[in-house]
Amino acid sequence: MQADRPPRPAGALTRRSLLVGIGAAGGAGAMYAAMGVLGLAPTERTAPVPPASGAAPTPFVPPRRSDFTLRGDGAPASVLVLGAGVAGLAVAYELGKAGYHCTVLEARDRVGGRSLTLRGGDVLEETAAPGGGAGARQRVTFGEGTYFNAGPARIAQWMVTLDYCRELGVPLEVFVNANSSAYVLTEGMKGPVRVRTARADAYGYISELLAKATDEGALDARLTAADKERLLDFLTHFGDIGGSLAYTGGERRGFRVDPGVGAGTGLGRVPSLTEVLSQGLGRMLTMDAGYEQAMPMFQPVGGMDAIVRALAARVGADRIRTGVQVTGITGRPDGVEVTVAGGAPVRADYCVATLPPHVLAKIPGNLDAGVRAALATPIPMSAGKIGLEYGRRWWEIEDQVYGGATETDLDIGHIWYPSYGYHAERGLVVGYYNTGPAAEAYDGLAHRERLRRALAAGRRVHGAKYGRDILAATSIAWRRQPHIEGAWVRWPSTGGLSLLQRPAGRVYFAGDWLTHLIAWQAGALESARKVVTDLHHRVLKS
Amino acid sequence: MQADRPPRPAGALTRRSLLVGIGAAGGAGAMYAAMGVLGLAPTERTAPVPPASGAAPTPFVPPRRSDFTLRGDGAPASVLVLGAGVAGLAVAYELGKAGYHCTVLEARDRVGGRSLTLRGGDVLEETAAPGGGAGARQRVTFGEGTYFNAGPARIAQWMVTLDYCRELGVPLEVFVNANSSAYVLTEGMKGPVRVRTARADAYGYISELLAKATDEGALDARLTAADKERLLDFLTHFGDIGGSLAYTGGERRGFRVDPGVGAGTGLGRVPSLTEVLSQGLGRMLTMDAGYEQAMPMFQPVGGMDAIVRALAARVGADRIRTGVQVTGITGRPDGVEVTVAGGAPVRADYCVATLPPHVLAKIPGNLDAGVRAALATPIPMSAGKIGLEYGRRWWEIEDQVYGGATETDLDIGHIWYPSYGYHAERGLVVGYYNTGPAAEAYDGLAHRERLRRALAAGRRVHGAKYGRDILAATSIAWRRQPHIEGAWVRWPSTGGLSLLQRPAGRVYFAGDWLTHLIAWQAGALESARKVVTDLHHRVLKS
Repeated sequence: MQADRPPRPAGALTRRSLLVGIGAAGGAGAMYAAMGVLGLAPTERTAPVPPASGAAPTPFVPPRRSDFTLRGDGAPASVLVLGAGVAGLAVAYELGKAGYHCTVLEARDRVGGRSLTLRGGDVLEETAAPGGGAGARQRVTFGEGTYFNAGPARIAQWMVTLDYCRELGVPLEVFVNANSSAYVLTEGMKGPVRVRTARADAYGYISELLAKATDEGALDARLTAADKERLLDFLTHFGDIGGSLAYTGGERRGFRVDPGVGAGTGLGRVPSLTEVLSQGLGRMLTMDAGYEQAMPMFQPVGGMDAIVRALAARVGADRIRTGVQVTGITGRPDGVEVTVAGGAPVRADYCVATLPPHVLAKIPGNLDAGVRAALATPIPMSAGKIGLEYGRRWWEIEDQVYGGATETDLDIGHIWYPSYGYHAERGLVVGYYNTGPAAEAYDGLAHRERLRRALAAGRRVHGAKYGRDILAATSIAWRRQPHIEGAWVRWPSTGGLSLLQRPAGRVYFAGDWLTHLIAWQAGALESARKVVTDLHHRVLKS
Repeated sequence: MQADRPPRPAGALTRRSLLVGIGAAGGAGAMYAAMGVLGLAPTERTAPVPPASGAAPTPFVPPRRSDFTLRGDGAPASVLVLGAGVAGLAVAYELGKAGYHCTVLEARDRVGGRSLTLRGGDVLEETAAPGGGAGARQRVTFGEGTYFNAGPARIAQWMVTLDYCRELGVPLEVFVNANSSAYVLTEGMKGPVRVRTARADAYGYISELLAKATDEGALDARLTAADKERLLDFLTHFGDIGGSLAYTGGERRGFRVDPGVGAGTGLGRVPSLTEVLSQGLGRMLTMDAGYEQAMPMFQPVGGMDAIVRALAARVGADRIRTGVQVTGITGRPDGVEVTVAGGAPVRADYCVATLPPHVLAKIPGNLDAGVRAALATPIPMSAGKIGLEYGRRWWEIEDQVYGGATETDLDIGHIWYPSYGYHAERGLVVGYYNTGPAAEAYDGLAHRERLRRALAAGRRVHGAKYGRDILAATSIAWRRQPHIEGAWVRWPSTGGLSLLQRPAGRVYFAGDWLTHLIAWQAGALESARKVVTDLHHRVLKS
């Protein structure tokens, strides 16, 4: 999962919000719309964490064995890490570099947490829906070579996640987050339009309107003569408008018959300004403008779980205990005791709890009331995806769409075309990636009904072929994932966050939910680095 | 090589120009600027090939052996193919499917023509510069795994080139043609700015200007009340402007300190509208808006020559004679005779000449005067590239730029960061890709001087590190490539083009220069398909 920031008032850097949990799934506006539905006006958002000072942050220095020998004092301590997700594995990996004795306890039967890549042979359990009902179980039947990143799927160039890929030797390839050949479809449109066409029309009319207003002197109070000339030059390029300053289409829209030996044939009638504006595509055409979503983005070759598998391998299988559910956390002056279901209590000098806050909040122990209240504050959010494996890559063969996303305002949110296996026989399309109220609605559905809805919506974009050649399908509702119980969290109020960024005695907390990168693996990694640094400094001083 | 279309007046689909030879190298405006320098006004451009009719074109049907047996008449003929570039190999490959006896004559010592991928161990010969001087010879010393696509480097999703990759089993990966984290630099700027920052500022101010004009009623004659409301909503998203309709920056610009545990620190002062307009970035920020340049684009894994190597393998090594220079082409009523340097004449039923027109025009023979005049019409154009192999991928490690291009108006044109080998030890940067007058200037330089200039320009973008850790460098000036003598051609007038799209007796012509996709492999492939279809129909009827 990776949420987008909601669009914010200009200059709002100091108001970066933690309220991303409302969901966005790849289009800031989706979240914005959802916030509107929930009555969460952007003005309610605040920044609980003080903005960083202007100085560059201290670079992360991993603990080293020599830190102890050089100082001649202290020694690596024992650390219990709760949760083998990205944050927990990174904590154990980094502390392990200095010889800390880490034990990672994971309630699920595999490592990775939300960094979940599903392949044929996997079994996906779901708990009862929040509104009641029974649990469910899907057997994944994708073919050899097909994978479904059910959780996070993309990495921005600036994120620390890429540094870990480099350090761990995880090979990368481009994740196509935006594709000019993919489509946009809103309820206000008669049918799907290629992104390139919608963008050409929108940019064209914007340029025409502004160019004509400029030309007629309407902006004389704001623009010098030189500004005007430069603006008109800019708009000529930007909107592909000619000397008349009128937008009448152009090759950026695409072709019905591509150029080749012949000149090509255009798409036909250019919609009117009113038609273009009524499409309501503002947020869809700016999906990739955000800092977290801009192209190019990246993914590990072979599945996102390559990162957590590499981390787990470095930590060592003998230090990770899966299928172990924590039932109590008790801090003592000299250590931490953790009780587990059906096993002996485990003790260590320190504990780093990386479970989701809403899960941690339910675990008994002696954490003080303020800490418990803070853990109970963030609200777990819904997000869902469906992976549709096709026996024929019709999106490439027939639609000439290689990766990327179709953006909609339907309840499926987005359709993602695979950024791997180009021209292979099979391919996996993400038939929905929804958040907010749409995801909440899908939470309560059985897999079969989710599939039915996904196909119905997909047919509106791609026609009947969307329902054919399907070999396998698996859907996930993150609110129903055992021991995770949410896609990410939203902080409805900021009280308690800074409290949890500090240790509660010998218990530390780590996770994306403690950062400004909620729903991104990078948040978990940054949080892990902070806790590792804090803990190591404390041990060195002890 | 792949040229962009020059920007054209809106609605100019029917005026798609063949004059792309003026060069563009990844930014329509570069070509536009070059055209201005040369006094080539866009209005001079015309479309010599009639636009295709509204009907979908007849899909290409490759010749099959059964075409002969089913009809009970005719038989595969013998065909001499001149030139083992993309067009020539595709002709031989397609005709070979029906059992035609093709012989491919290639003057160079390797197949591929302009689809040239250089690796360690290769030797690159250059003829004397057009202005005189001596020839030159570079020994390529790139390390294992490093390659340099000295010619074409990228493929658009809609191009037939991808169909050939699928058919031939050539694996693909994304070519990052635009990167929000890369830079723009013009002579009018104090220093480089990230694409994302420049774009955020430009879009922000455009939105502010148009939103305020709309809000103040300056567009009331053009917009209904509903239009106005929708336009303002669109601009809010598009420009990331708030309720005040003023652009004051925002997270799209990027950060000095990235968000993580803290909220991040913005980039600082937002430039004024006047400053933004004076950067002159209109064409650079719309580089990827064109139909041929939009993201995502693709490349074969391991080097562009994977396509020509696959074609050559299907044609068969025994049917391709390299190092054979054609010295005469004589058409006869019953066949074609081709003389070659230092060898016996070669005869066949038909000939398909795929050499560049300016090379063909110099070969003696009995082609009629009209055909010879037509061949002499297109003007060969200059383009150049330099491949810089670094021992350290500083653009990834320090600048967090993974693939893509920095656009400049310096004489280097573009800097391309590699779209392969992410996080490897070494990497190859294309230090310039220039066209037009800049390329003409570089044509006359020795490799060492080209390298010096490339490094000086690159330092203006990346600082001193651009000059460090260089392991190897190779540069190419396409005007100085033996037997090719140009990057692509420009048609200064349209006379003769349609003549060359028809056979001259038993001699056919094929190449990108006969299509509306000049400088793209897709043009060569489309032309090859047309000739194959025409020739096969003729043989079936004979």
